Amino acid sequence: VAVKRYVALCEGGFDEEAKTATGVLRYAESPTVAVIDSTRAGTTVRDHVPGLASDVPVVATLADALAFEPTTMLVGIAPAGGKLPAAFKAVVLEAIAAGLDVESGLHDFLGDDPRLAAAASAAGVEVRDLRRPPAGLNVPTGENLTIHAHVVLTVGSDCALGKMTVCLELHREALRRGLASEFVATGQTGIAIAGWGIAVDEVVSDYVAGAAERLVVEGHRRGGDDAILWIEGQGSINHPFYSGVTLGLLHGSAPHTLLIVHEPGRELIDGDPRYAIPPLAGLIEDYRRIAAYVRPAPMAGVALKTNRLTEAQARTAIEEIGGATGLVTDDPVRFGAGRLLDAVLASRATAAEAVR
Amino acid sequence: VAVKRYVALCEGGFDEEAKTATGVLRYAESPTVAVIDSTRAGTTVRDHVPGLASDVPVVATLADALAFEPTTMLVGIAPAGGKLPAAFKAVVLEAIAAGLDVESGLHDFLGDDPRLAAAASAAGVEVRDLRRPPAGLNVPTGENLTIHAHVVLTVGSDCALGKMTVCLELHREALRRGLASEFVATGQTGIAIAGWGIAVDEVVSDYVAGAAERLVVEGHRRGGDDAILWIEGQGSINHPFYSGVTLGLLHGSAPHTLLIVHEPGRELIDGDPRYAIPPLAGLIEDYRRIAAYVRPAPMAGVALKTNRLTEAQARTAIEEIGGATGLVTDDPVRFGAGRLLDAVLASRATAAEAVR
Repeated sequence: VAVKRYVALCEGGFDEEAKTATGVLRYAESPTVAVIDSTRAGTTVRDHVPGLASDVPVVATLADALAFEPTTMLVGIAPAGGKLPAAFKAVVLEAIAAGLDVESGLHDFLGDDPRLAAAASAAGVEVRDLRRPPAGLNVPTGENLTIHAHVVLTVGSDCALGKMTVCLELHREALRRGLASEFVATGQTGIAIAGWGIAVDEVVSDYVAGAAERLVVEGHRRGGDDAILWIEGQGSINHPFYSGVTLGLLHGSAPHTLLIVHEPGRELIDGDPRYAIPPLAGLIEDYRRIAAYVRPAPMAGVALKTNRLTEAQARTAIEEIGGATGLVTDDPVRFGAGRLLDAVLASRATAAEAVR
Repeated sequence: VAVKRYVALCEGGFDEEAKTATGVLRYAESPTVAVIDSTRAGTTVRDHVPGLASDVPVVATLADALAFEPTTMLVGIAPAGGKLPAAFKAVVLEAIAAGLDVESGLHDFLGDDPRLAAAASAAGVEVRDLRRPPAGLNVPTGENLTIHAHVVLTVGSDCALGKMTVCLELHREALRRGLASEFVATGQTGIAIAGWGIAVDEVVSDYVAGAAERLVVEGHRRGGDDAILWIEGQGSINHPFYSGVTLGLLHGSAPHTLLIVHEPGRELIDGDPRYAIPPLAGLIEDYRRIAAYVRPAPMAGVALKTNRLTEAQARTAIEEIGGATGLVTDDPVRFGAGRLLDAVLASRATAAEAVR
């Protein structure tokens, strides 16, 4: 397999909000060799994104980036509305002409743009729309309940909490311990990182559960019976916009174990501040009850997002929420994923014992 | 507005399973003037569908049907796979050539067939794909919580229980009493009956709640502040395939009142008999809990589907389930919709009192 080397197109916006680019920089196996953002040219990525310990250069133009021999342009930021701005399109066309493949997580599919499609065809490169659902989706076949790998789904008290990040940190920790482990992506950034997956929120609602099942089946094919499959959660069961996606993903992936992600101090739902984030205990109970319609799944722990708290505040929150829920609680980004992985492994051992 | 007169294309399949055709025959304002099914030609619709008290003729060919002056051909049965069989396509082309509009609830959109589209354009008629989602859907705007009409959603213990029928029977009873009332369709048969609506299971999962909100807003526009809006439910929160659609519809329509539909004696989930239908009490509790994340909604009653039971069995089931749940329980098709409508009106009065 040819090694993929990314150049991330982030013109005017390379910071923490450039989620696809920063996700790939942090977690992808394929290296990012340069970031294009003329407003930050001459710096490196660590100058703009806390916790990104990397000296990947930020350059002004594609021509500058080509010196680092990228193979693939990643559209690394999602402009408002999900459409490709005209200035971006010009650079994408340049990249295609230079023989680069293009990957995009935008809502608007680049491959559907006749000019881009024709250019890619002429240049013999691929345009990959990471959010485009695969063909042939349907309702679940039932295979989801027959998978022998251990399926773990991250759920949450809101959207935009870092469910993907929690999965990736636990996946990395599992690999570090020599365990079989697969990260299963359900959104565009995850797909860019993993190189496979389905953006389940782009799937016709009738087939979300079927898409989730397909992901679990594929994760098992890659990881085998002994693997832990970390399913990237989406939305939350209490979210006024996205709860349908959450529940379709929950029932279609049929997890053995749940992990809930929460941000202490966040009081209102992301995207609609008329709604309060409900108390965690009732929410955990609801996830357990609703999951059980397909397969009973214990909540193994609580992963907290504490990056807006001081370290002392974070430790207090972990202690308080751990005490209130009776569950292993930690911030796997800040304090390491070990304790939460231990909790998942304990949950897997209990499940295996029950089967015996 | 020109009056629409349907001819229903049901070749080889005009019976109870011809759901779109029988739904339109039973509930649509626009009359069906003939049904095409050469295997049953010379009979009337009442000969094939229990409870359909109508002498609409079943004829062998479109030519025979044209004598009854239809304006619109309705593709009245859904063949396996949702595709239009070649023999049907020939008749649809004949209908277009004869100047008829065409309506279809198939998964495969007729309007996307170049030959059908060209024929329709040449004949100056419309091909309406009832399942095609409208353009411009998005997440909810928040308008769903500001609607002054009383929003009632049917939920259930499974799919394929008659949630649409329950809505239509209660809607009719409300109209009979002179109340403002609107039926709000969320599936193809309901859309054929009402003449408007969105097939929410065909909507990209991210936008199901937004589509449901749009339906409530439109129902209110049509019915006004005093109207009861009867939202056709889909799937069920415990259904391994469709729960995501159910929850998106629940949170997006933000009902004031819920009605649960259940079939006594049905033990296994429609479509996947590995799953049992759970006890009704817990399910009702789950609907209440999950609905409350967007708006608290009491369960006003239980609508039973008892058509496979004897009348004595049906009355026993109504008594037992009413006793066990403490809710008004009835089969609105078999015994009239009055008691369940009274329960909904009581729920509305309580809600109005609470607001005061």
